[in-house]
Amino acid sequence: MAAKKRRKTQTTKIQPKRARNFSPGTVTYTGKKITTVTTLDIIDYSKEHFHRFETNNIHEAFNYEDSTNITWINVNGLSNTQDIVTLGNHFELHPLIQEDIVSTYQRPKIDEYEEYLFLVFKMLHYDDEQLTKEHISLVMGKDYVLTFQEAEGDVFGDLRERLEHGKGRIRGAGSDYLMFAILDAVVDNYFTVIEFLSNKVEILEDKLFDDKGDPNIAEEIQELKKEILQIRKAVVPLREVINRLEKLEIPLIEERTNKYIRDLYDHIIQVNDSVEIYREMIWSLMDMYMTTISNKMNEVMKVLTIMASIFIPLTFMAGIYGMNFEFMPELHLRYGYYYFWGAMIVVFFGMLWYFKRKKWL
Amino acid sequence: MAAKKRRKTQTTKIQPKRARNFSPGTVTYTGKKITTVTTLDIIDYSKEHFHRFETNNIHEAFNYEDSTNITWINVNGLSNTQDIVTLGNHFELHPLIQEDIVSTYQRPKIDEYEEYLFLVFKMLHYDDEQLTKEHISLVMGKDYVLTFQEAEGDVFGDLRERLEHGKGRIRGAGSDYLMFAILDAVVDNYFTVIEFLSNKVEILEDKLFDDKGDPNIAEEIQELKKEILQIRKAVVPLREVINRLEKLEIPLIEERTNKYIRDLYDHIIQVNDSVEIYREMIWSLMDMYMTTISNKMNEVMKVLTIMASIFIPLTFMAGIYGMNFEFMPELHLRYGYYYFWGAMIVVFFGMLWYFKRKKWL
Amino acid sequence: MAAKKRRKTQTTKIQPKRARNFSPGTVTYTGKKITTVTTLDIIDYSKEHFHRFETNNIHEAFNYEDSTNITWINVNGLSNTQDIVTLGNHFELHPLIQEDIVSTYQRPKIDEYEEYLFLVFKMLHYDDEQLTKEHISLVMGKDYVLTFQEAEGDVFGDLRERLEHGKGRIRGAGSDYLMFAILDAVVDNYFTVIEFLSNKVEILEDKLFDDKGDPNIAEEIQELKKEILQIRKAVVPLREVINRLEKLEIPLIEERTNKYIRDLYDHIIQVNDSVEIYREMIWSLMDMYMTTISNKMNEVMKVLTIMASIFIPLTFMAGIYGMNFEFMPELHLRYGYYYFWGAMIVVFFGMLWYFKRKKWL
Amino acid sequence: MAAKKRRKTQTTKIQPKRARNFSPGTVTYTGKKITTVTTLDIIDYSKEHFHRFETNNIHEAFNYEDSTNITWINVNGLSNTQDIVTLGNHFELHPLIQEDIVSTYQRPKIDEYEEYLFLVFKMLHYDDEQLTKEHISLVMGKDYVLTFQEAEGDVFGDLRERLEHGKGRIRGAGSDYLMFAILDAVVDNYFTVIEFLSNKVEILEDKLFDDKGDPNIAEEIQELKKEILQIRKAVVPLREVINRLEKLEIPLIEERTNKYIRDLYDHIIQVNDSVEIYREMIWSLMDMYMTTISNKMNEVMKVLTIMASIFIPLTFMAGIYGMNFEFMPELHLRYGYYYFWGAMIVVFFGMLWYFKRKKWL
Amino acid sequence: MAAKKRRKTQTTKIQPKRARNFSPGTVTYTGKKITTVTTLDIIDYSKEHFHRFETNNIHEAFNYEDSTNITWINVNGLSNTQDIVTLGNHFELHPLIQEDIVSTYQRPKIDEYEEYLFLVFKMLHYDDEQLTKEHISLVMGKDYVLTFQEAEGDVFGDLRERLEHGKGRIRGAGSDYLMFAILDAVVDNYFTVIEFLSNKVEILEDKLFDDKGDPNIAEEIQELKKEILQIRKAVVPLREVINRLEKLEIPLIEERTNKYIRDLYDHIIQVNDSVEIYREMIWSLMDMYMTTISNKMNEVMKVLTIMASIFIPLTFMAGIYGMNFEFMPELHLRYGYYYFWGAMIVVFFGMLWYFKRKKWL
Repeated sequence: MAAKKRRKTQTTKIQPKRARNFSPGTVTYTGKKITTVTTLDIIDYSKEHFHRFETNNIHEAFNYEDSTNITWINVNGLSNTQDIVTLGNHFELHPLIQEDIVSTYQRPKIDEYEEYLFLVFKMLHYDDEQLTKEHISLVMGKDYVLTFQEAEGDVFGDLRERLEHGKGRIRGAGSDYLMFAILDAVVDNYFTVIEFLSNKVEILEDKLFDDKGDPNIAEEIQELKKEILQIRKAVVPLREVINRLEKLEIPLIEERTNKYIRDLYDHIIQVNDSVEIYREMIWSLMDMYMTTISNKMNEVMKVLTIMASIFIPLTFMAGIYGMNFEFMPELHLRYGYYYFWGAMIVVFFGMLWYFKRKKWL
Repeated sequence: MAAKKRRKTQTTKIQPKRARNFSPGTVTYTGKKITTVTTLDIIDYSKEHFHRFETNNIHEAFNYEDSTNITWINVNGLSNTQDIVTLGNHFELHPLIQEDIVSTYQRPKIDEYEEYLFLVFKMLHYDDEQLTKEHISLVMGKDYVLTFQEAEGDVFGDLRERLEHGKGRIRGAGSDYLMFAILDAVVDNYFTVIEFLSNKVEILEDKLFDDKGDPNIAEEIQELKKEILQIRKAVVPLREVINRLEKLEIPLIEERTNKYIRDLYDHIIQVNDSVEIYREMIWSLMDMYMTTISNKMNEVMKVLTIMASIFIPLTFMAGIYGMNFEFMPELHLRYGYYYFWGAMIVVFFGMLWYFKRKKWL
Repeated sequence: MAAKKRRKTQTTKIQPKRARNFSPGTVTYTGKKITTVTTLDIIDYSKEHFHRFETNNIHEAFNYEDSTNITWINVNGLSNTQDIVTLGNHFELHPLIQEDIVSTYQRPKIDEYEEYLFLVFKMLHYDDEQLTKEHISLVMGKDYVLTFQEAEGDVFGDLRERLEHGKGRIRGAGSDYLMFAILDAVVDNYFTVIEFLSNKVEILEDKLFDDKGDPNIAEEIQELKKEILQIRKAVVPLREVINRLEKLEIPLIEERTNKYIRDLYDHIIQVNDSVEIYREMIWSLMDMYMTTISNKMNEVMKVLTIMASIFIPLTFMAGIYGMNFEFMPELHLRYGYYYFWGAMIVVFFGMLWYFKRKKWL
Repeated sequence: MAAKKRRKTQTTKIQPKRARNFSPGTVTYTGKKITTVTTLDIIDYSKEHFHRFETNNIHEAFNYEDSTNITWINVNGLSNTQDIVTLGNHFELHPLIQEDIVSTYQRPKIDEYEEYLFLVFKMLHYDDEQLTKEHISLVMGKDYVLTFQEAEGDVFGDLRERLEHGKGRIRGAGSDYLMFAILDAVVDNYFTVIEFLSNKVEILEDKLFDDKGDPNIAEEIQELKKEILQIRKAVVPLREVINRLEKLEIPLIEERTNKYIRDLYDHIIQVNDSVEIYREMIWSLMDMYMTTISNKMNEVMKVLTIMASIFIPLTFMAGIYGMNFEFMPELHLRYGYYYFWGAMIVVFFGMLWYFKRKKWL
Repeated sequence: MAAKKRRKTQTTKIQPKRARNFSPGTVTYTGKKITTVTTLDIIDYSKEHFHRFETNNIHEAFNYEDSTNITWINVNGLSNTQDIVTLGNHFELHPLIQEDIVSTYQRPKIDEYEEYLFLVFKMLHYDDEQLTKEHISLVMGKDYVLTFQEAEGDVFGDLRERLEHGKGRIRGAGSDYLMFAILDAVVDNYFTVIEFLSNKVEILEDKLFDDKGDPNIAEEIQELKKEILQIRKAVVPLREVINRLEKLEIPLIEERTNKYIRDLYDHIIQVNDSVEIYREMIWSLMDMYMTTISNKMNEVMKVLTIMASIFIPLTFMAGIYGMNFEFMPELHLRYGYYYFWGAMIVVFFGMLWYFKRKKWL
């Protein structure tokens, strides 16, 4: 059972396999989520107008280029790289960008181009107790936002709802605000992930202070270490990305959006602080575990010592009177046997008193 | 009992639940201190004039806008967000500020606006051995200061007294000096919190060096770790806030207040130094605890070894003469039994001498 | 066998022997790969043209100085320093550069000269489970690239193929792009090395959680520590080198190549992040190992304690009735022996129940 | 006795009690050295002239304001705050300075004012094995230096001697050089303190490697940790202070004094380096202690194991022939008893040989 | 013997005694190498000319001030401070420099003066397994270089040879190149020192993994820690010195020497990297040692547990049939004794099988 558990908990891989030995600029998907079809989820909106539909035909997306509306094209599935290239060429994305969109190992970054901003970041979620990481790319142009995900299922549900029902200032704002809202949803989701992790840490702490002495705790701590390192690997570079985003002074980002981005930066710093704190907590769990083990060993040793210290002298006394010497006067006393019992009781309680005084009992 | 204790000590939560999936700018209270009514504590003063009263009616606060007086409106209770919004709109606070006022997870920060400064920070206090954290926001305008607290009860008692009795230079100074005085009270309070923590550390150290071997010490150290991390989470960003405050060159802050803010910065650096030192001390407590456990185990082992090493050979000797061989000449000696006792006494004291020489006794 | 294993695993040397006490600028090979002949692998190409051949005659390389083509001269073998000097003088390389080319201890660096750029970096690979490090120097001039390796065998196979078959934009680009492609191949290879290391870490983790308790694990962890420190020693300065390369504004590097170098910088940062994460993981393996050992000792102690605690009292009881007192009424009871067995069974199961309750069984 | 020792060694307090809830600028003494009278030690000198006297009357100090001489007024005792205020007002010191002079918790700092420089720093000394910390403030004006100490007794003896006997260039130099000489005496004294600490560390190391296994070592290490943290708390900010002093370009400090301040800065950096090294050494002492304990436990275990492993089988053998089976042929052998002894001797030496081979003996 | 060894290994002193309470600028030797005579080793050279001689008469050195030649005066022995002062005054060295020349505690630094550069650094070497540190000062003027050493014997032998035989470009270059060559010899020597340390680390590692369990290993690790900290104390500030040297733009240093200094900087960075790596390695040795001890204890415990677990039940069985109950049917069985042996063999091999399965055997 322990082995089974291990198999389950050791799936966190820090190092993804990397596509190697390709010419730079080659568009090769490096992730594990192979989906045969690429689905597009297109939302086209302006202050008065909202239209949403899904399609598998990449060319349908090209109709939404009306500069009065904002178009958000969300692409699910990166394994069909031909579709990505088609879309990328249509929007005139640089080959290196196209490569980064499908290179799931790419760390979060921001690249400025004349016509658009390109961002890479990671979406984290706990999937059946397992931390999973999804590679997301975002291209923000003057009147469109493209997002690329490895698979369907994301954290943008509320955002789409707000877009549809025109809640907040989102419908009236530009593509820069949409980009902000997407990043905000991702960062908000980090809080959820950290909360989940925080629960795992607390459960582990409770286990640690319990008496059961679960031998899998070391593995679980190791697993938590990997998870927090994973989260940090996603958060730290994103912090730099948002910091740079805040400092960009480009026409693509309106003045009034800046306040929101500064707010977003506050949030990612907040996430980062929590990650650092949990890192310290998880690292110190190992020390806790060591003391727990040592405490337990101490207890075991005390039981042994008490048992041995009481009975070894008594056994010795019994051994004395089991000897076959011809002349042993005590053996022939009328109440010798009872005297012997008396002596034994004295030794027994003397020992108990001694261990009591030492606070071992 | 250990379990009960644990329940009590494990309440320090590092990660507050965060309100998620709301549109940015949505004013939603995220704390736990739900109070049905929002109470306002209004102080209006100038060099000659002092007026103070409390009210539940938010609109009464709006009468105090006489630019010759300084008005300090302290709001207790953030759960009734409608009141916050009303007040915020009256003072023309940006929606993001209104959101931050009620978002208890917000880390300390400073935002400059044209008409006012906005600060967020944390008030810490030990409440029945429990470190609690209260989210405080402060808006400082030309002739008013607004403070928002989660619940009643704060560290501003002395400040109000000084205001009322006109002690110090406070009554003659502007709203910037009042802001400074409020921050100073908060930072001063950090010293109290650290002193309390310092006492807890010392009590724990004494426990560690005692003989009792309390098994809950590991948990208490873990609890202290969480507390110091909590304090650091409040102090470090506030240091940055005050540093930025010192460097601001805006008309809202008078030249002569700058010296005081520099002094305040010295104090928060001082707090920060202490936090770092206690962090190191608490972390090293765990090592201390490990050595204590090991020392104890060593002692247990010595007792066992001494008992066993003395009596096992003696028992063996008794076993020899308990054998039933037909021809065992010693058994038939006249004083065999006494010779035997002599041999045993020699072995016994030989062993004692050996252990004495090894400094185990 | 353990000794044999050690001999095998302890070959990672952090500190290479350094050639000492030579006049600065003296060209002395400091590595271990002594090859009698220096082989040159020359590739000469332009958009339309590709020519490749190998030679041992250094002078044949000098024919390829047609400024319309790009010439890549790859030198294998540094022990024949006369050849290096000849080549270096032909290309007018500064004596310090010639010294660095053959000084295998030289850490990665970049030196700008008027006519060329000089880079030093390390190629890493696992050779039969053994991390080996090869010193590579690169000189990039207007229409040529020189690379110097300690021995034959490298990671540029794919690059040569792409050059030959004109894949990608490489044939049309200048010597700066070739330099980038070479660096890219080296950095890509770091990912392979880290993946290999990651496998070793995982195998070690599995061993740790296994029951076997392999005593060589400490040595293997130590070995991994040395390897990760070795890798870091190669990666960290290369990161600085590429960072400086990105910021150079010199005619030798075309504008359009800059994007690729920025991409390369992203990759080396990515490598660096992974190295740091593995460093933390490997360091924490030691803690894991300690807990594993302690857990095992705990188990051993429990077995001993259970055995001793059960049988020592029973032996004592048997000892009692082995005594030879004249008057021991129990001995003469009709069913005394059976009563005795009854008492022993009670003690035996009482003990079992006690250890069960303590969860030791 | 252990308890007594503890009481003695645990007096190092990291966190001084802070005066709280006073209006900023209130002059309140926060230290522990309550002296009823404030004594002044006044030295007035020029190149040709030297006058020194002590007084309790603060007003006598005011006569020494002849701008051709340099006057050094050293104030011992800060508990009589009225005197401080009188003196402070006479020299027109800002209220915040007056507060800092008596606030012993104030960390080292430098404040520039138009007419004078204000410095705060700590004088450390070991007082009967106990590290004590004295709060010193220094005001340096055009032709005077004021120093404020908590109690009499300082490290300026040599300096006064040099002043009196006109050794060195001090008598001819200005007040800036006097300030430098005072700081130099304080920093020089840090070397003494670190040397003392270094001796304590070495004594502790020797104890550690001794056989005695003193259980108070953990406490002493903890005490050393506190002391080094205390010293660091005094040194690190002073380093910043002297660094800023070096960079000041004000008329109060003459050009030719700058070289000396740079030299002083070298010294405080030197102190700082040593503090960091001792910090590492002291932290690693704990690890040393752990290994010492574990080594000792190992030795104890070996003794137990050897004793038990030798005698338990022998006892078993004796037990065999103590059985009362009717048919046990060995019992009736003529030399059975001697064969038995032979077997026992074989087992005994076999065991010894086994443990010898295992290098346990 | 252990005590003797300790005495030998504990001689590394981190903190040298400092001369205290001297007026700044007082020239007082603070080292331990008291030599009665100061010897001078003078080399005077130009491209065509080379002259070298040794003398004890300081005044003979003053003849070599022909500005067409470069004069290198190497002073051995600092205890005769009068000679230093005479020489210093002749070359018009600032009093603070004269103080630093003989203050062996002075950390590495560089001071610029109008007429010369002043450098302080440390020469390290292992002297009979003991790391020793020699204080070296260097003054570089337009046509002379002065070096001051505590005692005879240095690392400049090769340099002098090269000077004499005119190898390399050294004879034709100026005093700046000579200064570089001296520094280069010192830095090159650091590599030797680190190599020696690396050997000590490897020997210790081998000891650790050996079975002997040498109890002095903890002390040796502690000694290595001190040595690496010592080396770091010499290397880190020298790195800063060389960095500043590289950035100086003064007429004393020719343009063409800059490349060499940059190369030197690369080397000292390289040394620094190695020091950091060894620091990590040595620190982790302690952990290794702990696991080794624990592993050994585990083994000891296993032997005890196996012995006790096998023989305690057997002894109990023998005890049963040693009882004297009147009615014990087994005793009277014809083959009772043999049945008993059978049972014992079953128990014995059952136990062995159990421990085999647990992989303890």
